[in-house]
Amino acid sequence: MPAVEGTTGFPHNSSPKPAPKPIPEPVRWRHETLEILDQRLLPGTVHYDVQTGVHSVATAIRELRVRGAPAIGIAAAYGVVLAAREAGGGDSLQQRLTSAAATLTSARPTAVNLAWAVKRVMARFDPTLDADTNYLRLRTEAEALHAEDRRICRAIGAAGVELIKEGSSIMTHCNAGALAVSELGTATAPMYLAHRSGIRFRVFANETRPVLQGARLTAWELDRAGIDVTLVCDNAAGHLMAGGQVDLVIVGADRVTANGDVVNKIGTATLAILCDHFDIPFYVACPSSTFDPDTPRGVDVEIEERPAEEVRSFEGLEIPGHIQIRNPGFDVTPRALVTGFVTNRGLLGPPYPDTLSVLK
Amino acid sequence: MPAVEGTTGFPHNSSPKPAPKPIPEPVRWRHETLEILDQRLLPGTVHYDVQTGVHSVATAIRELRVRGAPAIGIAAAYGVVLAAREAGGGDSLQQRLTSAAATLTSARPTAVNLAWAVKRVMARFDPTLDADTNYLRLRTEAEALHAEDRRICRAIGAAGVELIKEGSSIMTHCNAGALAVSELGTATAPMYLAHRSGIRFRVFANETRPVLQGARLTAWELDRAGIDVTLVCDNAAGHLMAGGQVDLVIVGADRVTANGDVVNKIGTATLAILCDHFDIPFYVACPSSTFDPDTPRGVDVEIEERPAEEVRSFEGLEIPGHIQIRNPGFDVTPRALVTGFVTNRGLLGPPYPDTLSVLK
Repeated sequence: MPAVEGTTGFPHNSSPKPAPKPIPEPVRWRHETLEILDQRLLPGTVHYDVQTGVHSVATAIRELRVRGAPAIGIAAAYGVVLAAREAGGGDSLQQRLTSAAATLTSARPTAVNLAWAVKRVMARFDPTLDADTNYLRLRTEAEALHAEDRRICRAIGAAGVELIKEGSSIMTHCNAGALAVSELGTATAPMYLAHRSGIRFRVFANETRPVLQGARLTAWELDRAGIDVTLVCDNAAGHLMAGGQVDLVIVGADRVTANGDVVNKIGTATLAILCDHFDIPFYVACPSSTFDPDTPRGVDVEIEERPAEEVRSFEGLEIPGHIQIRNPGFDVTPRALVTGFVTNRGLLGPPYPDTLSVLK
Repeated sequence: MPAVEGTTGFPHNSSPKPAPKPIPEPVRWRHETLEILDQRLLPGTVHYDVQTGVHSVATAIRELRVRGAPAIGIAAAYGVVLAAREAGGGDSLQQRLTSAAATLTSARPTAVNLAWAVKRVMARFDPTLDADTNYLRLRTEAEALHAEDRRICRAIGAAGVELIKEGSSIMTHCNAGALAVSELGTATAPMYLAHRSGIRFRVFANETRPVLQGARLTAWELDRAGIDVTLVCDNAAGHLMAGGQVDLVIVGADRVTANGDVVNKIGTATLAILCDHFDIPFYVACPSSTFDPDTPRGVDVEIEERPAEEVRSFEGLEIPGHIQIRNPGFDVTPRALVTGFVTNRGLLGPPYPDTLSVLK
C-alpha cells in the first residue's frame, strides 16, 4: 500500500506531505458530555466545544460548526439527551423534550436526517417512567444511532468501492466526508476503503463556495488520510471534465425525495448536468435515513436561503450593503441525471424510484 | 426612465441605494502620462497608479491591476508609447521598442488583444524617422486604438440591445464591463444601452472565483450605473436557471478561434453547458480584435495556469502548502453552444465560422 501519494507533479505542490493521521470525529460523547468539533476553524485548528444544553447544540447546527446531514442528526440526537438532563423550570420532562425537539429540528430546514434522528430518540421517551430511566433510554438510543451511523458508512463504502479503479480520477463537491458523518463519511467512504486496499486514485475536491467546505474540510481530511487530493475552484469542474481528467463524480445528499431527486449543496446540480454533457458517471452516496418518501419530488423541498454575508465579505473586501445577493444553500439534481445511489443497502441504479424502495 | 431600480424585495438588500455615478476608466492617458486603475482594490478604493515605464505596465497586466482583454490591449498600446520615451542605455529606439513589445506581449498569454494591440502600435514605428516623430506616431496610434475601442463598445451595445426585453433576467460571468474595456464594456454594452433607453431588467452577476471579478467589479459597476444587479456564487447559476430565473446569458471572450470556439474566464464553458441543458440563449460579446483566425480551434489555445495562492488563501485561512491545487484561468466553450456573437460587426449567429468572416 502506498504510504504517501500525491506526488503527481503539479507545480504548486510546494511543501512536503506529512504522514497520514486519523480524522477527528465531528461529534463525540464522552463522560456524559457532548462535544462538537468547530468545523469553522478547520483546517487551521482542531477544537471541540463542550455543549451546555439543547440551545448550544441548535446554535452549533445553525452556525455550521457541525454540518453534514448525518453529523447534524447525531448532534441533534445527543441534544435531546442533554435536554433530558437540563433544569426545566416548571416544565415537565415531556414538555422540555418536546420543546427541545422543536428547537433542534428547526435549526436547519433542509436536512431530513435532523428531524429523523430527533424523532427516533424522542420515540424512546416513556412518560410512565422516571427521569433517570428516560435519560438512560434516550442516551442509549443516541449512542445506538451513532454506532449505526458508523456501520452505515462502512456499508456505503463497501457498496461503492467497486467504482474506484486503479488510476481513477474522482471529483467530489462540498464535504460528505468523515467530518460530515462519522468514521468513513458517505461520498468519501468508497475512497477511504479503496485507499486502504492499496488502490491508487486521485480526487478533485471542489472548493464549494460560499462556505468552502470542499477547501476547508474535504481537501483537508482526504489529505490527512494520505489520499492524493487536488483542490480546485468550482468553476474549474467543466474544464477538467472537458480535458478528460474526471472519470466519475461522487457527492453526498441532504435529502433524496420519493421520486429519486437529490437535494444537496448548491452546485451539485450543475456538476450533474456537466456529467450528463460529458458522459461521466454521477453517483450520490447516502444512508437510507437521507431518503424521504414523504416528499414527492425535489421541487417540493424548500431551499434554504442562507445569509448574504457568506457571499458579501471576502479577503478583507466587502460588497456594498445595498447590492442584492442571492445565496441559496442547496439545489435539486433531477433523478434522471443520477447514474446510481451508493447506499448502505447497496449500489442502486435506475429505474428510480423502484430501486430505492429498499431504503424505506 | 427608472432612476432607482433594484427594489425587488430580496431580504438581503439592507442599505439604501445611492444615485448612479460614472464608472472610472480602467486606463487613462492624460498629460503624456499613463494611469492604470488598480482594480484589485475595487470595490473599496478607486486608485490610479501612474505608470513609470514598460515594466510597470507589464506588472500591472500580470498582477491583474488591469484586466479584461480589450483594456489590457489599450494599456499595452500605451506601454509601447512609454517605451519610446524611456532612457535606453546603449540600445537604439528600435531595440528598446522590440524588447518592450516582447515584455508586454508575454505578460498574459491567453488574451489575443494584447499581442494585437502591441503589434498595431509597433507598426507605426519608422526607423527612418527621428525619436520625437516616432513617439508622436506611436502615441497617436495608441490614442486612436483607445478611441476606436469606445466606438466598438457602442457598436457591440447596438448589436445586442435587442436581446434585452422589458423584464429580462440576464446572467453574466466575470467582468466584460466598462472596467474590462472602455466606456460601455462588451458583455455589458447591451445592458448599459438598454438601461439608458429605460428598459427594466435584472442582471445576475456570478462572483467568478478565484479572483472574484464578478463580485468585485461587475456587481459594482452595474450597480454604480443604476442597473438592478444581484450577486450570486458561481455554484448558484444552475439552480437559478432550473428555477426559470435566467432568460439569457451574455459573457465576454478573451479569444475566439478560427472555428468559433470561445476562450474565456474559467467557468464560462460550464455556464454554456447549463444554458444548453436548460435551453437558455448563450451569447458571447466581443470586438473583432478578439477573433483569432490564426488559431484553428479552442483546444489549440494554451490555457494559463494561474498561481495556486489565488485558491489557497481565503478569509484568514490557508490550505496547507503540500495540498495540491489546480487553478486554470480560462476554459473553452465549443462553438456549438454559442447562440450568437454580439460584435461590433453585428449579431452573428450560426453557422460558424462562416458568419464570423466579417470579423477578419
